Amino acid sequence: MDYNELSAYVDSRKREYLNELSGIIRIESVSADPSKKKEMVRCAESISSLMREAGIENVTLFETGGNPLIYGDYKHAEGKPTVLVYGHYDVQPVDPLSEWETPPFEATVRGDDLYARGSSDDKGQLFMHLKAFEAFRKLNEEIPVNLKYIFEGEEEIGSIHLEPFIRSHGELLKADVVVISDTAMYGRDMPTICYGLRGMAYLEITVSNSAIDLHSGSFGGAIDNPVHVLADIVSRLHDKYGRVTVPHFYDDVVDVPTEEREEIARLPYSDAEFLRQSGAVATFGEYGFSTNERLWIRPTLDVNGIYGGFTGEGAKTIIPSKATAKVSMRLVPNQSSAKILDLFEIFINQIVPPTVKVAIKKMHSGEPALTPINHPAVKAASAALERVFGRKPYFIREGGSIPEVLTFQETLGAPVVLLGFGLPDENSHAPNEHLYLRHFFDGIKTLAVLYQELSS
Amino acid sequence: MDYNELSAYVDSRKREYLNELSGIIRIESVSADPSKKKEMVRCAESISSLMREAGIENVTLFETGGNPLIYGDYKHAEGKPTVLVYGHYDVQPVDPLSEWETPPFEATVRGDDLYARGSSDDKGQLFMHLKAFEAFRKLNEEIPVNLKYIFEGEEEIGSIHLEPFIRSHGELLKADVVVISDTAMYGRDMPTICYGLRGMAYLEITVSNSAIDLHSGSFGGAIDNPVHVLADIVSRLHDKYGRVTVPHFYDDVVDVPTEEREEIARLPYSDAEFLRQSGAVATFGEYGFSTNERLWIRPTLDVNGIYGGFTGEGAKTIIPSKATAKVSMRLVPNQSSAKILDLFEIFINQIVPPTVKVAIKKMHSGEPALTPINHPAVKAASAALERVFGRKPYFIREGGSIPEVLTFQETLGAPVVLLGFGLPDENSHAPNEHLYLRHFFDGIKTLAVLYQELSS
Repeated sequence: MDYNELSAYVDSRKREYLNELSGIIRIESVSADPSKKKEMVRCAESISSLMREAGIENVTLFETGGNPLIYGDYKHAEGKPTVLVYGHYDVQPVDPLSEWETPPFEATVRGDDLYARGSSDDKGQLFMHLKAFEAFRKLNEEIPVNLKYIFEGEEEIGSIHLEPFIRSHGELLKADVVVISDTAMYGRDMPTICYGLRGMAYLEITVSNSAIDLHSGSFGGAIDNPVHVLADIVSRLHDKYGRVTVPHFYDDVVDVPTEEREEIARLPYSDAEFLRQSGAVATFGEYGFSTNERLWIRPTLDVNGIYGGFTGEGAKTIIPSKATAKVSMRLVPNQSSAKILDLFEIFINQIVPPTVKVAIKKMHSGEPALTPINHPAVKAASAALERVFGRKPYFIREGGSIPEVLTFQETLGAPVVLLGFGLPDENSHAPNEHLYLRHFFDGIKTLAVLYQELSS
Repeated sequence: MDYNELSAYVDSRKREYLNELSGIIRIESVSADPSKKKEMVRCAESISSLMREAGIENVTLFETGGNPLIYGDYKHAEGKPTVLVYGHYDVQPVDPLSEWETPPFEATVRGDDLYARGSSDDKGQLFMHLKAFEAFRKLNEEIPVNLKYIFEGEEEIGSIHLEPFIRSHGELLKADVVVISDTAMYGRDMPTICYGLRGMAYLEITVSNSAIDLHSGSFGGAIDNPVHVLADIVSRLHDKYGRVTVPHFYDDVVDVPTEEREEIARLPYSDAEFLRQSGAVATFGEYGFSTNERLWIRPTLDVNGIYGGFTGEGAKTIIPSKATAKVSMRLVPNQSSAKILDLFEIFINQIVPPTVKVAIKKMHSGEPALTPINHPAVKAASAALERVFGRKPYFIREGGSIPEVLTFQETLGAPVVLLGFGLPDENSHAPNEHLYLRHFFDGIKTLAVLYQELSS
C-alpha cells in the first residue's frame, strides 16, 4: 500500500472517525461502577459491530463472569506473522464531575484535542487499531499480517478475568507479537516506543512486642517500642547514596548499555516540569542516575504505608503493641520478585533486634518486562513511527507495571510492543481527559504502516 | 490518741465499714457513661451524707457544669496545719461485664479481698479518709489538724472541671499539705509512699512532600518518601545506648542521690513478673539504669503512634504524600516541658533533609512533680505507715503523670503526699477490681495516725 494514498485516505475520513468514536464514548462504560453493568455490555456490542463493519471476522463476546471480553480475527496472510492487538473499552470513573469543562461522555473538539472520558484511555486508541485495519479494506489492499483482537472491559479494575482467559485460550490467542496501544508518548509529536516495564515485589512487615497497647507512663522507657524498631528498620533500607541496602538486591541487575542511557539522556526532561507534575519539593534518588533512569532502569524500594499505635486526633500516651509497614520494590529486568522477597526477609530477620517480634507477609508480585530495542517487532514499530511522524522515535521505559503485558509474554511467549499515542498530561484518570487529534489520526496511519512493516 | 485504742476500734468496726462502703459502691457512678448522670449526683449526695454523719462540716456540692464536686471541712485545730484530702467518687466503665465473677456493683468479699468496681479506685480509698476522721470523733478525741476535703466525679474522664475549680477557689482549698489516696502500694503488706511523678511533653511531627499520594510506578525512586524521612528521624531520636539524642535533653535532669537509687534497688523486682504484666518480649531501655529507674527517674521519648500513606488491607503502590508521628516525652523533675518541646523542634529542623517539608505541632504538656523524701509531710506519712504496718515504707515514684497533683502544687503551693493503699494487680480499670482488705482497714488506721503525725 502506498503511504501517501493511506495518509490521504485517513485524512479524508477525519470527520467520520470522530463521529464513530463519539458513539463509543457516549456509552458510560465505567467498570468501577456496579450500576453500569448494562452499559458495559452495550459498549462491548457496539465495538463488536464496528469490528464487523471493518471486516474483522469471528467477532465473539466471551462471558467472563464480569464484563465480556471481545475477540475477533482476520487470518488470511499465509506465512506472515500473527499480530495480537490488545485494548480495553472500560473507562475510569468521572468524579469530580463538576471539574469537567464539557460533559465527560460527550466527545468535544476544543483546539487540537478531543475531550471525553476514554478519548485517550483507551477507547480512542483501541479505535485506531480498527480504523487501521479498515483502511486496508477500503483501499482494496490485502491485510499484510494475520490479526487477532482481544479487548477487555475490566482494565481499570485490575483485569480480573483477563489472565485466566489468556491462560485457558492460548491456542486462540497464539501470536508472534502483541501490540498494545494504551500508553503515552513522551510528548507532543514525539513518537515513542515503550520497551520496558518495572516489576514489583510487595510485602508487609509487622514489628510487635506486647499483646496490647501499654500505658507509656507505666512502661515507657523500660521495653522496646515497635514503632522505634520499625523506624530503625525502614531507616536501614537505604544507604546515604539512595541505594537499597538489602544484601544481593542488585546482584541480578543487568548494566544498561551506554547507548541506552544516552538514548534516555537525549529525551527532553525538566526538573521544574517533573516537580510540577509530582508536587514534590525536590528530586531525590539513587546517586549517579538521572530522574528517568531512577524511574525506568533502576530498582527501587518504597514504603507505601506505615501505621502503628494511636493514629486518631489528639494525644494518647501508649507504647504501641505493634507497627506495620507496607513495602514495595520496583524491579528491573532480570530481577526475580520471588528472590527479592526472600532476600528482603533474610535481611530483616538479620537486623531485627531480640527485643521484639517480627513478621513478614509476602503479598503480590510481578516480573519486570523488557522487549529489546533491537527486536524485529520493535524495529518494525520504530520504522512505522518514523514513516508517519518524520523522525526517529524515542525509546522509553515505564516505572510501573502493566500486568497484562507479563501475562501475554509468559503465556503466549510473544514479545509485547507498547505503541501508545496518548500523552502524559492528557488526564487519563482525571477530569477533562483528552486526546491530541494529530496523534489520533497519525496513530491510525502508524498502525497501518506497522502491519506492513511486520509483514516484511 | 492511743494507737492500740484506735486499732482496736477500727478492727471492731470492720463489718459496718464494709456495709457502708457497699452502699456507695452500689451507686453506678460511671462518669464515662452519659446515661448515668443521675447516679453521679446520687453518689455525690450519699458521700455528702457520710461526711456529715462523720462530723465533717460545711459539706457542699458545687455544680461544675459536669458532675458535682464535693467540699467539706473541719477546722478546729488552731495553729495546726491544714490538710486537704483529694479523692474521686466516679468509677471506670465495667465492660466486659461477662468477665466479672460477681456483679461489679455488688461489693463481695472473697478470700482476703473486697471485689467491686470502685473498691480500690477510688471509692474505697476515699472512704478510708472519712473513717479515719470519724474514728477520732467516736473515740472522743480532738481532730489534730485542720481538714478540708475535695472529692470529684470526673477523674476517670480527665478531671475536666477540677482544675478551673481549684484555680478559682484557692482560698477555700488553701492547705499546708495535700493527701491523695488514689495510687497503689508496691505490693501486699509493703507500705509505700509515692514521692515523684514524671511530666509530659507531647507533640506531633508531620513530614510531607507531594500534595497528594503519588503512583509509585511513576514517581518511586525519583522523589523522597515522607515515610522514609520520618523513619530516619525517629531512628535518630535514640542512640545505641537508649539515650534520647535531642541536644540538651538531659541538661536539666538532676542526678538522683545514691541513697535514692539504693532505695529503688531495695524494692523487690522481677524481670519475669514485669514481662508478664507488660506482655513484652524483653526489658529494654537506657543503658546503665534498672527497669524501675528507667520508669521513674529517667526521662524517656516514645512514639505513641505513626501513620502515613496506605494503611488499609492489601497492597497499594503509592508514595505517601505525608507521614505523621505522635511523640511523647516523659520528663523528670527540674525538666521543663516547654523547653523540651523547643529543643525537640530545634533538633528536628536541624536534621530534616531539604527534600521534604516538616511541621511540628506542640500538643499538651505537664510538669514533673516531686515531693522530696525528707519533706516533713512525707516523714509524717512514713512514720504513720511504719506505726501501722510495722515496717519502714518503700519510697517509689510513678512513671506516669497525675494531672491534679500538678494543679494542687502549682495553685495551692502545697506539697502533695501520694499515700495510696491499692495494689498494682487490683484491676482498677478492668473486670474484677478488688481491694485487699488488710490494706483497707490498715489504711484507715494509717490515715488517722498521719493526721496526728502532721499535727506534731
